[in-house]
Amino acid sequence: MTTTDLSVLTLQCPDQPGIVAAVANLISDVGGNIANADQHTDRDSAVFLQRIEIDGAVDWAAFDLGLAQLIERFSMQHTLHRPGIRDRVVIACSAELYCAADLLTRMSLGELDVDVVALISDKPAAGELAAQHGIPFRLLDGGLAGDARAAQEAAFAQALNELEPDLVVLARYMRILPEAITLRWNGRMINIHHSFLPAFAGAKPYHRAHKRGVKLIGATAHYVTAELDAGPIIAQGITPVSHRDEVEDLVRKGRDVERTTLANAIRLHLEHRVLVWDNRTCVFA
Amino acid sequence: MTTTDLSVLTLQCPDQPGIVAAVANLISDVGGNIANADQHTDRDSAVFLQRIEIDGAVDWAAFDLGLAQLIERFSMQHTLHRPGIRDRVVIACSAELYCAADLLTRMSLGELDVDVVALISDKPAAGELAAQHGIPFRLLDGGLAGDARAAQEAAFAQALNELEPDLVVLARYMRILPEAITLRWNGRMINIHHSFLPAFAGAKPYHRAHKRGVKLIGATAHYVTAELDAGPIIAQGITPVSHRDEVEDLVRKGRDVERTTLANAIRLHLEHRVLVWDNRTCVFA
Amino acid sequence: MTTTDLSVLTLQCPDQPGIVAAVANLISDVGGNIANADQHTDRDSAVFLQRIEIDGAVDWAAFDLGLAQLIERFSMQHTLHRPGIRDRVVIACSAELYCAADLLTRMSLGELDVDVVALISDKPAAGELAAQHGIPFRLLDGGLAGDARAAQEAAFAQALNELEPDLVVLARYMRILPEAITLRWNGRMINIHHSFLPAFAGAKPYHRAHKRGVKLIGATAHYVTAELDAGPIIAQGITPVSHRDEVEDLVRKGRDVERTTLANAIRLHLEHRVLVWDNRTCVFA
Amino acid sequence: MTTTDLSVLTLQCPDQPGIVAAVANLISDVGGNIANADQHTDRDSAVFLQRIEIDGAVDWAAFDLGLAQLIERFSMQHTLHRPGIRDRVVIACSAELYCAADLLTRMSLGELDVDVVALISDKPAAGELAAQHGIPFRLLDGGLAGDARAAQEAAFAQALNELEPDLVVLARYMRILPEAITLRWNGRMINIHHSFLPAFAGAKPYHRAHKRGVKLIGATAHYVTAELDAGPIIAQGITPVSHRDEVEDLVRKGRDVERTTLANAIRLHLEHRVLVWDNRTCVFA
Repeated sequence: MTTTDLSVLTLQCPDQPGIVAAVANLISDVGGNIANADQHTDRDSAVFLQRIEIDGAVDWAAFDLGLAQLIERFSMQHTLHRPGIRDRVVIACSAELYCAADLLTRMSLGELDVDVVALISDKPAAGELAAQHGIPFRLLDGGLAGDARAAQEAAFAQALNELEPDLVVLARYMRILPEAITLRWNGRMINIHHSFLPAFAGAKPYHRAHKRGVKLIGATAHYVTAELDAGPIIAQGITPVSHRDEVEDLVRKGRDVERTTLANAIRLHLEHRVLVWDNRTCVFA
Repeated sequence: MTTTDLSVLTLQCPDQPGIVAAVANLISDVGGNIANADQHTDRDSAVFLQRIEIDGAVDWAAFDLGLAQLIERFSMQHTLHRPGIRDRVVIACSAELYCAADLLTRMSLGELDVDVVALISDKPAAGELAAQHGIPFRLLDGGLAGDARAAQEAAFAQALNELEPDLVVLARYMRILPEAITLRWNGRMINIHHSFLPAFAGAKPYHRAHKRGVKLIGATAHYVTAELDAGPIIAQGITPVSHRDEVEDLVRKGRDVERTTLANAIRLHLEHRVLVWDNRTCVFA
Repeated sequence: MTTTDLSVLTLQCPDQPGIVAAVANLISDVGGNIANADQHTDRDSAVFLQRIEIDGAVDWAAFDLGLAQLIERFSMQHTLHRPGIRDRVVIACSAELYCAADLLTRMSLGELDVDVVALISDKPAAGELAAQHGIPFRLLDGGLAGDARAAQEAAFAQALNELEPDLVVLARYMRILPEAITLRWNGRMINIHHSFLPAFAGAKPYHRAHKRGVKLIGATAHYVTAELDAGPIIAQGITPVSHRDEVEDLVRKGRDVERTTLANAIRLHLEHRVLVWDNRTCVFA
Repeated sequence: MTTTDLSVLTLQCPDQPGIVAAVANLISDVGGNIANADQHTDRDSAVFLQRIEIDGAVDWAAFDLGLAQLIERFSMQHTLHRPGIRDRVVIACSAELYCAADLLTRMSLGELDVDVVALISDKPAAGELAAQHGIPFRLLDGGLAGDARAAQEAAFAQALNELEPDLVVLARYMRILPEAITLRWNGRMINIHHSFLPAFAGAKPYHRAHKRGVKLIGATAHYVTAELDAGPIIAQGITPVSHRDEVEDLVRKGRDVERTTLANAIRLHLEHRVLVWDNRTCVFA
């Protein structure tokens, strides 16, 4: 991910004439330049969405004042991201470590320009991975059923609350989360599911793909919502398979798709390229 | 599709040691040569599948005698296709003509080396397409509900029975078929469905894909069975989409995937590269 | 291709602050609305490129006046396309008809919303294809070498001059064109080359790909320039191949890539989504 | 990579009738079973290639005797790989560590079931990566020009000779090797080149791809031969790019293609799925 000197503004509001001009004028008036702009109007919902990269000698106080007026005028939601701030990321995983390992390797190499503030898992083996990369590790107590499960969920919720990350990545964290968590981290929690959703939502997608005899398998990175595997899709990848592939071959081939799809979705999110409306995403790639 | 001088033998039987050697010996003993061979053993069901291309100065009478013994010995199912026989194909379509038009164009150009014995549709407009390519046309009377539907199904069944094709291609024939038809043409009827199955089986897959916000759409060519969109998958294709794509863009982009996926599946079938077991396909590509 | 009620404005000029705001203001001031906008600034050459879809009750006289001022102020090149005008297209082919047949089928089906004013070829067989689709046909006299070649080039140049198309599509027209033609139709002549350029530029790319043992083959649609196969690339597609594929298999597999890549490039061009600078394209897809 | 109990036999010889039957008989006669077999006959060179997975209670002494007779009879080249032997692999890299890091991560996770006997580099930073994974590190002295270059080449050659690996992986080792090395490790040295060869062979392929304005970039894993980037291709991957992608974006996107293409090629090699003839590969995937 390229470190950038650009500020990024994202906007979302009911569509009406004049938005683009009003925003462009504001930026121009306060000394800014539009380095890149991307916009989309969703026809069905009549929602206007825009992402603007701003450079130049901006008078940010004047910008804030002017933006407040536009927000009022157009009933806008917005985000503004100034350059030079590294996001704080938590990665969670359970038994399978390969997605977490891939993300940590990318971080070590500078490909993923974030601070990983913790790796969280209920598996002690993940602690070795964290140590290998010099990342704090949190082992979740509890288990998968009954009271132990509730305890683990509570421990996970509490860890996130304490760490206050900008983004939570479920890197093969194979637990169904309670609504208390999914609501709290709405729009800031990305999961990788090992199928091309909506096919094979839920458990054991590779086994079901093998049994169904599909000729393609895939992976889907999406924001987590209360409904399992039904949140807004950020990125999807696929790879061809054949009758020669046993379930373990699907698992192996799928790993590479999962890794790259998840890393891609995280980058898009961190570069503020993903806007969500109506349980869908607008990805200004 | 390349015209070939090769005979093609396909075999399917419970796995046991010695099959490959026995078959190879037979071919060698009767003067044949194995130009190409492909085999697969399905681990879960312990089924052995093989496709062999044979050339050379084969004593076919001796071959038939020897093969009969192997069939007995190994409880084999088999097919044997001698070169130089053109398959007789029926194409069926309803309102959308693009898959049928693509297949007829491929046939005109010699890419698809078959005799299209009829285009069948309930839409008169399809008749113009048939005329353009000099293909016999059958217009189905009847309609979509109640008695009219039953009449149309009967007309379709009767047309197929009269024409006795080697293969029926449902090239966007958007009708749910009665079991009388799907059973009769089991393994000889290929449908193109406009989603990557099992996602979006059934009606209006592009609308549902748009609403779900997927980043990939696809098409699936499969053998038709009694259960809708659940038959053995022969080929699947996908193409990326984005938030900018309205339903009509998915329809447009999907057309190219449907056309090429269907044509590919037909070619694989005609070259005897597709073996079916356990509602899955072995595709010796 | 969707028929649209939108006007499309494309702009290209040296980058400087204030362009986006100035253009947005103009459109807003004359009663227009920006339905979609896409922009790009090329970092190396500092060129600003933009494509805007405009709807609303535009006062076009006022727009023209205002645009003239912007053109002056920013040293802009621009194009403005009003809705409802069907492009006039010439298709040229030589021995291989499949790309031309595919385009004519798309046109017949309404997928390609243009007037094909002529199919031009030096092969009489192409005349049957034109007749099948009710398209005027021009047979080029002359040949491939010496005076006959010069005569054929002159005949081709004259036919184009007489027909005055908006776009010339070289749909497997396998002739190296003289500069008189490539210059005259610069930016309005699209060729499909059957390799992923710059690999295998020139003759017999599939043979060379087979000999080199590549695992992917491809096709490239590009604007024609004086240098063979070196013009701005609009679209590229690929398909995997293996050791099992003989040259004729590459030819067969490549056909589908060529067809869809060419049709895609034509659509992008006709929707005014392709801007050219520095022998590269900006494709606002 | 799945650890397997199967023995793998590969064969290569001039094509003639009877090879398949003779080999199948041998395996059957000595108590073996053909678990999987894949064969190919190259039409142009009339070379027969085969890969067989053997299980069962094989009398290996009898097998060796019989195989010797077949080798004599058919002028075969062969390899025989018994299960349970882990390959010894050397990884070499220069400034860019991401391919090496990816391979070491796969090894740590058990995806790549090999012994990495050393990481070799002329960059001390690679030593940290080796230490992170507990792998021996060899730092190459010398430099890039003149005597220093010769010294570095000699050091590399000597390190390989001492380590005697089964496979050398050039994981972004950006040095042109002398023929003494490429000949010595012929068929056992795999390089990853960051373009879809034969496009952009040599230096700075991403820069040249950007300048050419391609819409796809790729990576190629190949065996190293004396001629730069011209050895037998094992695997290729691609990813789409657009005008928005600067050179650094191509670098970023290309990394994922390089990583997965290289890892895939290594797996294919280690599973004895790659046979080389005529500077091309037969990949029995």
